[in-house]
Amino acid sequence: MSKITKQKKIGLVPGFKSAGIVSGIKASGAKDLTLIVSDVPAIAAGVFTKNRVLAPSVIYNKRRLAKVEKFKAVIVNSGNANACTGPQGMEDCKTICDSLAKELAINANQTLIASTGIIGVPLPTPKITSAIPKLANSLSDKGWNQAAQGIMTTDLVSKMAEVRYKEGKKEIVLAGIAKGSGMIHPNMATMLGFAFTNANIDKKVLKKALQLATDASFNSITVDGECSTNDCVLVLANGLAGNSKINGNGASYKNFVAALTDLCQTLAQKIVRDGEGATKFVTIAVTGSRSLKEARKAGMRIATSNLVKTALFGEDPNWGRIVCAVGDSGVSLNPEKISVAIEGQMLAQAGVPVQFPKKKVDRLMKKKEIQIDVDLGVGAESAKVWTCDFSYDYVKINAEYTT
Amino acid sequence: MSKITKQKKIGLVPGFKSAGIVSGIKASGAKDLTLIVSDVPAIAAGVFTKNRVLAPSVIYNKRRLAKVEKFKAVIVNSGNANACTGPQGMEDCKTICDSLAKELAINANQTLIASTGIIGVPLPTPKITSAIPKLANSLSDKGWNQAAQGIMTTDLVSKMAEVRYKEGKKEIVLAGIAKGSGMIHPNMATMLGFAFTNANIDKKVLKKALQLATDASFNSITVDGECSTNDCVLVLANGLAGNSKINGNGASYKNFVAALTDLCQTLAQKIVRDGEGATKFVTIAVTGSRSLKEARKAGMRIATSNLVKTALFGEDPNWGRIVCAVGDSGVSLNPEKISVAIEGQMLAQAGVPVQFPKKKVDRLMKKKEIQIDVDLGVGAESAKVWTCDFSYDYVKINAEYTT
Repeated sequence: MSKITKQKKIGLVPGFKSAGIVSGIKASGAKDLTLIVSDVPAIAAGVFTKNRVLAPSVIYNKRRLAKVEKFKAVIVNSGNANACTGPQGMEDCKTICDSLAKELAINANQTLIASTGIIGVPLPTPKITSAIPKLANSLSDKGWNQAAQGIMTTDLVSKMAEVRYKEGKKEIVLAGIAKGSGMIHPNMATMLGFAFTNANIDKKVLKKALQLATDASFNSITVDGECSTNDCVLVLANGLAGNSKINGNGASYKNFVAALTDLCQTLAQKIVRDGEGATKFVTIAVTGSRSLKEARKAGMRIATSNLVKTALFGEDPNWGRIVCAVGDSGVSLNPEKISVAIEGQMLAQAGVPVQFPKKKVDRLMKKKEIQIDVDLGVGAESAKVWTCDFSYDYVKINAEYTT
Repeated sequence: MSKITKQKKIGLVPGFKSAGIVSGIKASGAKDLTLIVSDVPAIAAGVFTKNRVLAPSVIYNKRRLAKVEKFKAVIVNSGNANACTGPQGMEDCKTICDSLAKELAINANQTLIASTGIIGVPLPTPKITSAIPKLANSLSDKGWNQAAQGIMTTDLVSKMAEVRYKEGKKEIVLAGIAKGSGMIHPNMATMLGFAFTNANIDKKVLKKALQLATDASFNSITVDGECSTNDCVLVLANGLAGNSKINGNGASYKNFVAALTDLCQTLAQKIVRDGEGATKFVTIAVTGSRSLKEARKAGMRIATSNLVKTALFGEDPNWGRIVCAVGDSGVSLNPEKISVAIEGQMLAQAGVPVQFPKKKVDRLMKKKEIQIDVDLGVGAESAKVWTCDFSYDYVKINAEYTT
């Protein structure tokens, strides 16, 4: 595989145009409506929230993806999640997709939709449908920055990533935008991720690749341990790269999974860095696990522990809380084999405290990016997850909002 | 069954003596060593942490309870959890129990032990063994207040409860002490509960009763969703009430379960009220569930949601976060059947928002005790759980401690 080239901004993504505008949903007057269109019909795949209360947009996309072969457009609004809105919610989804399809002269079945923002409040659908002509007119192959802005809620910065690599003589481009900041204010925000690629790939293979990439990225981060009604990751592949169709389990498939995983990890890490109230970016690397699944499970339990996260905010090398979180994760372990290091400094080895140099560790804990290594000592599998610390500002942001 | 009489302080518990003294483990000089002794050998049962990293005291008690029929003493230290301390940890448990047994002229097998406080630091066992003669000399049938103080860590108040009821002509007395405040600073504290009764009861029946009572009390509360290495609930029953032995599933068994549950719920609610940084006491009542287990699971997911807890701190009637937490709990549900009320005011009915009187709800949200009712609408089972809100002070308490 050729080296993956990574960019913070998105350049041209062959065959895709995007836009992000103000439709008037947000009282702040910020951008709140995003559209991405593929010039040619594109295959698509999605990964959705495991929450059992699903927003209509999630149900709508699941149904479409199960029935329709190719798609042309993804529309996303921010400022209102259209969740817990009763039967009207699904009607609003359909109205918007129909209106968009009419404007773009495509079939309504070829549209996908996502919403993020306040829940339990009916979507101001007329504002969206009225803005669709302007939205379509704003489409540009340089519209990614606007598109990324249009999906933000409490995010402080817009989140974009791009990776490129060569498959034979063809250049495969993958671009993505995301929004996150945990699951949050107002009411609850949502993790949304959208990836667009010119790769020529089989639909089932794309679905498998997206699940793998999502598990290693968006499903391996946490800001506050919450899982929203609207969480959604979509990928569209329009085939314009002209590569031989990616199929099966061969090298070209592995290359694509690596590139998509890289893209999704970059976006996921941006979500963690922008976590509400976060002052530290924390990587948790679990090794010596019986399985990849258990390594992730142990890592995510540490990453969601309020006690670990407040200790990180307090710059306290509190390895006991880490061991306790691992013990609470339910994974296979032997307490006498667990080792914990922070920023390379061993704190506990095989279950026994290490006499560590206090001044050095105090200095390490002040770093803005911290890696925690946990070796379970019972297997050969490993996984990395990412989280942030837990500060006063998280409580402030989430307590001060009033419906 | 005769009416249960409840007391905040513990009176005489026939055949039990208790003490709490300063052994010097805590730098603050506060009480840190507690002893409860039964005049006659008592049967015992325990419920322990589900964390896979177990403190030596937990392992010690599990082994003893499996092998030994009757017990005479429970010793508890605070200020040091004796957890993650390597093989020395179990040696320290044995040394203390041996020393206590010698002092009391009983068999070491008849002792149970618990520890709570900092983890990863060797227990200062000589301080404890040196204090044992004084501890034994302090035993008194009026020692409960001291005993409750000796097990405190970050608790702001000591926690005691007593219930009495008549079984035929005999008076059954149950007394309990507990400590909690979540799982917490310094390093992590622990939930400990100890109950003592004069009931004459079969050992297996006592174990079953304790599990039921614990599930409906200590396992139905949360301060911060953490589960420690040392969590432990023990009950001793010395039979001195002289009632016909409680056996099987009859009325006397049900009476005892009700009384023990009442005792444990009172103690558990005291732990929640004293939760670190808590400003509100929150009851979550889940109804319409397919099973008791699912009702508790849904309730506990709401109770551990940082978003729900910060909204409560912010006095925001954010029912969307509640529905989302239920959806994330994994229980059987139908989003179109979920109803949510706070303090009796319906906020969402059958999945659809209710137009509620804002000023009235604002006033309700300012209350210090809040009940959230969630009806799942899919069954006939119900459960209550208790939690507190999540304030700046939780973060402060847990961030500012430095090892």
